[in-house]
Amino acid sequence: MGIDPGYAIMGYGILEYKGNKFTPLTYGSITTEAHTPDAERLKILYDELSKIIAEYQPDEASIEKLFYNTNATTAIMVGEARGVAMLACEQAGVSISEYTPLEIKSALTGYGKADKKQVQTMVKMILNLAEVPKPDDTADAIAAAICHAQHAGGRMPRR
Amino acid sequence: MGIDPGYAIMGYGILEYKGNKFTPLTYGSITTEAHTPDAERLKILYDELSKIIAEYQPDEASIEKLFYNTNATTAIMVGEARGVAMLACEQAGVSISEYTPLEIKSALTGYGKADKKQVQTMVKMILNLAEVPKPDDTADAIAAAICHAQHAGGRMPRR
Repeated sequence: MGIDPGYAIMGYGILEYKGNKFTPLTYGSITTEAHTPDAERLKILYDELSKIIAEYQPDEASIEKLFYNTNATTAIMVGEARGVAMLACEQAGVSISEYTPLEIKSALTGYGKADKKQVQTMVKMILNLAEVPKPDDTADAIAAAICHAQHAGGRMPRR
Repeated sequence: MGIDPGYAIMGYGILEYKGNKFTPLTYGSITTEAHTPDAERLKILYDELSKIIAEYQPDEASIEKLFYNTNATTAIMVGEARGVAMLACEQAGVSISEYTPLEIKSALTGYGKADKKQVQTMVKMILNLAEVPKPDDTADAIAAAICHAQHAGGRMPRR
């Protein structure tokens, strides 16, 4: 499972990885409205993500390691969304791995400086999809999941 | 209830505020070990805080609005701890108010640029304690609670 955490949009993607082949089980995004109080938004994100985890029972989760150049307020808010996502995983016994943007780009395109569009094109190709998953947060979450499978494939729990 | 969120130490303080008088019901801090995986630390913070909230059933919670000058990685981690604290409050129906450091210092000392020691001395005096509560995170959490009571005292739910 890949997760791309944010307050307004939290992207997720759950893939099956078997014999070097990826099959998407589900992907999408959880959204919250800007006018909703922050704590309520966090609860919505947490509740929805917990539901998805309970339904699909992923073995492991992958999340992008964040490096923000923007202001600290933004970083704190992303952290809050990230915190409840990590909690939802931990409560379900889903271990979380973190990857840098460089690692994710390299895993998807073989090139650490690939742009967003290249990564998205690879997500579409690897999963045999007709379109790039929307919004970007969903595609980013899937990219994190693919990266994790490639890094950790050999030691993922078998079912 | 005041909360001062952090990964290593999460301070909290629950006060009764009646007729302009404060009585501490409980205060302290939840700590997690640095070598523990992040998600596990978040779960410990969340579980412990949820337990305290369930036991003391505070009406409202108060938390310091953060402005970090440090690097974004620190801000994201504080955000993660903050996110699970906000979630614990929201799940228990405890509304959260945020106050700037200036507001908290002003409420405690009458002076927005008061230093940490002045604020701590006022916490000790206002609560009639023999000592300043330790660690700093606990004193800071109590200061946030006192600030909230002074700002919102008139509209706090009565029991």
